[in-house]
Amino acid sequence: MSCVHRFNGRRGSFDWEGVAVGGYESPSVKGASVRWLIGPQEKAPHLAMRYFEVQPGGYTSLERHAHDHGVLILRGRGSVLLGEEEIEVSFGDVVYVSPHDLHQFRCLSGEPLGFLCVVPAKRGETQ
Amino acid sequence: MSCVHRFNGRRGSFDWEGVAVGGYESPSVKGASVRWLIGPQEKAPHLAMRYFEVQPGGYTSLERHAHDHGVLILRGRGSVLLGEEEIEVSFGDVVYVSPHDLHQFRCLSGEPLGFLCVVPAKRGETQ
Repeated sequence: MSCVHRFNGRRGSFDWEGVAVGGYESPSVKGASVRWLIGPQEKAPHLAMRYFEVQPGGYTSLERHAHDHGVLILRGRGSVLLGEEEIEVSFGDVVYVSPHDLHQFRCLSGEPLGFLCVVPAKRGETQ
Repeated sequence: MSCVHRFNGRRGSFDWEGVAVGGYESPSVKGASVRWLIGPQEKAPHLAMRYFEVQPGGYTSLERHAHDHGVLILRGRGSVLLGEEEIEVSFGDVVYVSPHDLHQFRCLSGEPLGFLCVVPAKRGETQ
């Protein structure tokens, strides 16, 4: 159902009322967490919107899969590996990860790298 | 294909390299524009990510449709009508608009209201 998740970003943290922070399970991840802002809990039939945060020195899983990603960087400075190219990113940059393209996000500064990541609701296996 | 749209937010404006600002056509809209950050141009098969900006005194179309919206407020202060409820929103707030729910965004301050709006790639008629 329609709803608002109020932003609660006190003391420089990114949090939303009623949204829990979860671990991000993968064999090749370090210092990353995920908050599901829109997804199964809202009964969203087509898409999911998540907020990922990567701590200094950390990175997300190096992966490729059939679904794509729409990403907006919200805090910090980092890099994204897109195929064989590594590109620096910061606030406001938009990243599109096509289906089957290898990708990984990495925090490059002393502040966490935070980004919104949108995916289709129906997703297959991640390799 | 995978790509990065570099944020180019100089002088308080929200712009991205290689992304054009477009008019937002609807009979019931005032002072609103849209930038397609991810969509058909990137050959995204499942989703589209747009940045909407509503000028002071402006509003988006009052509408309802079968597809849903995932929204993140990026700048300014405004309100969203969700069904019969009007809710104030500002930076970081997340809005989920369920299928068939009436909705409209309105700018409430002297600064533009800017927000990210994600939709499924396949959308039907808007009423």
